[in-house]
Amino acid sequence: MFELRLVGIGMGNPDHLTGSAKEALQRADIILIPQKGSEKSDLAALRREICETVLINQPRFAEFLLPTRNPNEPDYLKRVDHWHDEIAHIWLETLRIHLPDGGSAALMIWGDPSLYDSSLRIAERLKLVVKDLTVKVTPGLTAIQLLTAAHGIPLNAIGAPVTISTGRQLREQGWPMGCDTLVVMLDGENSFDHLDKDKYYIWWGAFLGMPKEVIVSGPLSVCAEKIKKIRKKLRKEHGWIMDTYLLKHEPSKFA
Amino acid sequence: MFELRLVGIGMGNPDHLTGSAKEALQRADIILIPQKGSEKSDLAALRREICETVLINQPRFAEFLLPTRNPNEPDYLKRVDHWHDEIAHIWLETLRIHLPDGGSAALMIWGDPSLYDSSLRIAERLKLVVKDLTVKVTPGLTAIQLLTAAHGIPLNAIGAPVTISTGRQLREQGWPMGCDTLVVMLDGENSFDHLDKDKYYIWWGAFLGMPKEVIVSGPLSVCAEKIKKIRKKLRKEHGWIMDTYLLKHEPSKFA
Repeated sequence: MFELRLVGIGMGNPDHLTGSAKEALQRADIILIPQKGSEKSDLAALRREICETVLINQPRFAEFLLPTRNPNEPDYLKRVDHWHDEIAHIWLETLRIHLPDGGSAALMIWGDPSLYDSSLRIAERLKLVVKDLTVKVTPGLTAIQLLTAAHGIPLNAIGAPVTISTGRQLREQGWPMGCDTLVVMLDGENSFDHLDKDKYYIWWGAFLGMPKEVIVSGPLSVCAEKIKKIRKKLRKEHGWIMDTYLLKHEPSKFA
Repeated sequence: MFELRLVGIGMGNPDHLTGSAKEALQRADIILIPQKGSEKSDLAALRREICETVLINQPRFAEFLLPTRNPNEPDYLKRVDHWHDEIAHIWLETLRIHLPDGGSAALMIWGDPSLYDSSLRIAERLKLVVKDLTVKVTPGLTAIQLLTAAHGIPLNAIGAPVTISTGRQLREQGWPMGCDTLVVMLDGENSFDHLDKDKYYIWWGAFLGMPKEVIVSGPLSVCAEKIKKIRKKLRKEHGWIMDTYLLKHEPSKFA
């Protein structure tokens, strides 16, 4: 019998964890730690640090090497699909090595396991091979809640809809039809540059809820260059960056 | 000097609170408890219960009576606007009575303060009158994360956008243009009834993350009547209900 628990941990601050998340990590026989290679190496260290801060007993860590996506596969969805297959294979090996007689493994997920995270899809693949595998989700704070909290603003206008999307979508599809409030996630490329900057206002944040948090807000025409500079500087300084932003047509925070 | 701290608490389970949320409640001089009248009276009790479960010191509660919206005002936004004015006035009175020499007050918010909650807008009104007021936000789990966790599903399709909206929007505006994944919140009226039921799949949940949690998923044509019956039953049984749902064009959970 295997249990895989996907545990949302927020953006890296141990105080972002819920009581349920702490308990889920505490109960797991092993905690899976993905290693992404040198560039993001401090993220593995951050996962360990969070565990060591919030858990009573010293956890048993099981490291695995996360593969990179095949840059020669031109189709985005296929590229992601193959990558998920590979990761599922690595998870399987890792579980067999560290839990030869079964048991429970926890994987810490930045933000929440439901939002722009592949783990649930990879776990589905694993279920096809490991028949007695149960997959459970413990929710966590997303970057969106941490962004609006940092700026002290509501996400939605009164009774109005909100769209959550990605940098890639914004670049390739443009501003979504009928949308007034747009959250952009997974944007490695300053995709707001593709918009008419006089039409939008931005609320941006990096390392949200952490001591090194940086936020910027205002007209996109004023903030775009500033944000690009800060992103570059932060990425150089820390070796990685996690950031997200909210775009609106309206200047008012409380519209 | 006044500080008002809006603290996201998830859907009522004390284990939904983050470490930051617990600390924010612990540090407050008073905890504001809205009384909504008989129908939802157990929600005030639930707020007290959460505090009594998670806090070390017995908190000092400050109750206030939440007014109802004026049913004679036909314009929705005006109705909400006047209501917010009234609440701001009541908050002011409550702070003056319970904190005559200043101090900090915390208000527990179901879900997260940024999403379909009025408190940030009401607090802005208060700032106009109380010049030395600081408003801070502590994020909390939203019903959306608890819904996807309960069903064990991702919110988005791979790299694809998600729209968050309300029951009223769905009734009045129909299915949003270009949208494949829609979260519906604040729906007191089974607004999914206005859709062509053969076109959609639903993942619904009430009392998410609580021992009395109920979830239903499947084709909307199959689930709609079932959900309506369950909602009616639960509302009768508990006197209130908090529920939300996700609608997709695709049957696959992992599309």
